[in-house]
Amino acid sequence: MSRVTIAPEEDRLNAQIAFAIEIDKLKRIIRRNHLIDGSRRENTAEHSWYVGTLAMVLGEHAPPGTDLQRVVAMLLVHDLVEIDAGDTFIYDPVEVAVQADAERAAADRIFGLLPPDQTRWIRELWDEFEARKTPEARFAKALDRFAPILANHHTEGGTWPLFKVKAAQVREKVRIIEEGSPSLGVYALELVELSVARGHLSE
Amino acid sequence: MSRVTIAPEEDRLNAQIAFAIEIDKLKRIIRRNHLIDGSRRENTAEHSWYVGTLAMVLGEHAPPGTDLQRVVAMLLVHDLVEIDAGDTFIYDPVEVAVQADAERAAADRIFGLLPPDQTRWIRELWDEFEARKTPEARFAKALDRFAPILANHHTEGGTWPLFKVKAAQVREKVRIIEEGSPSLGVYALELVELSVARGHLSE
Repeated sequence: MSRVTIAPEEDRLNAQIAFAIEIDKLKRIIRRNHLIDGSRRENTAEHSWYVGTLAMVLGEHAPPGTDLQRVVAMLLVHDLVEIDAGDTFIYDPVEVAVQADAERAAADRIFGLLPPDQTRWIRELWDEFEARKTPEARFAKALDRFAPILANHHTEGGTWPLFKVKAAQVREKVRIIEEGSPSLGVYALELVELSVARGHLSE
Repeated sequence: MSRVTIAPEEDRLNAQIAFAIEIDKLKRIIRRNHLIDGSRRENTAEHSWYVGTLAMVLGEHAPPGTDLQRVVAMLLVHDLVEIDAGDTFIYDPVEVAVQADAERAAADRIFGLLPPDQTRWIRELWDEFEARKTPEARFAKALDRFAPILANHHTEGGTWPLFKVKAAQVREKVRIIEEGSPSLGVYALELVELSVARGHLSE
């Protein structure tokens, strides 16, 4: 009688490497907004790095007691679902609605490549981010909304005039920033009003 | 008598935003290696995201007690100096030597945009990474070396044949991986030997 022996550690590493190879694809997902120098559109991998690093240096603008390391972890994985579901333009309500199902299916497939305990862990981080009920998730989402406003402000409006986004729509996104970080909310609103004053964002 | 009042919190945020705008430039720094799908060369911002995320899912391959959140923080900022100093090709010894001074000057300027306490904090993380004396720095460096080996292995050798890198040179880099993570070292060596066997890396 023959018997195949499996080393569980090796299985775990193989699953983790399959995940590592898969998530490299996030570098190919192109977002609407541009880099701050205006040279090209941003991809989702570099966006994820950017907001994760912002969480480090802007952490004091989160409510006291916010677990910033959890915020960073959340931001590093928050957009992995875009590998299957693509980037959603947050100012397109139809796109946003259709996207939710596609993103859940993507989470099942992509996080499912990992060993089961890690699948659950990353899924929890992602669900928490999406639900926006903890201070960590609210701060993470605030940074996710803050970064494109910063980029648009510094690229003469960037995606706003390009996709005919109005000031009222942007002010609504600023409310999400305020919920995660009052001081970043105030700052973001200043950028928005300055963009309006400069004619880079229409009322 | 007039008096100008300065709100220190506002000063801090302005400094942090100046840093945020500056580090966006990391997305324009192009590395030698390619994405795993071979489609284009990688930039340093998306590389930083990739290795930070690898630290999350491969954390169990670090020595017990390694502070993985510090590893992630270190990896998110480890290459910011490339904004001024450019990417260094690790297989070019002349380039590596000249680079050290340029990177220190870059660290002074770029980290110096932050409020002084944060300048010191990021500098400590970067110095720790470069010195490779703590388990955190050794594991971070291991992942930094592991990622291009994974990419090269999956792109028929990638930068190895392109820049005439030999197997002995790659095995030397594998030793740095082993120092940070014995199990990832073993795995990386398997990839290297497999690449040699397939003719994608020359002895």
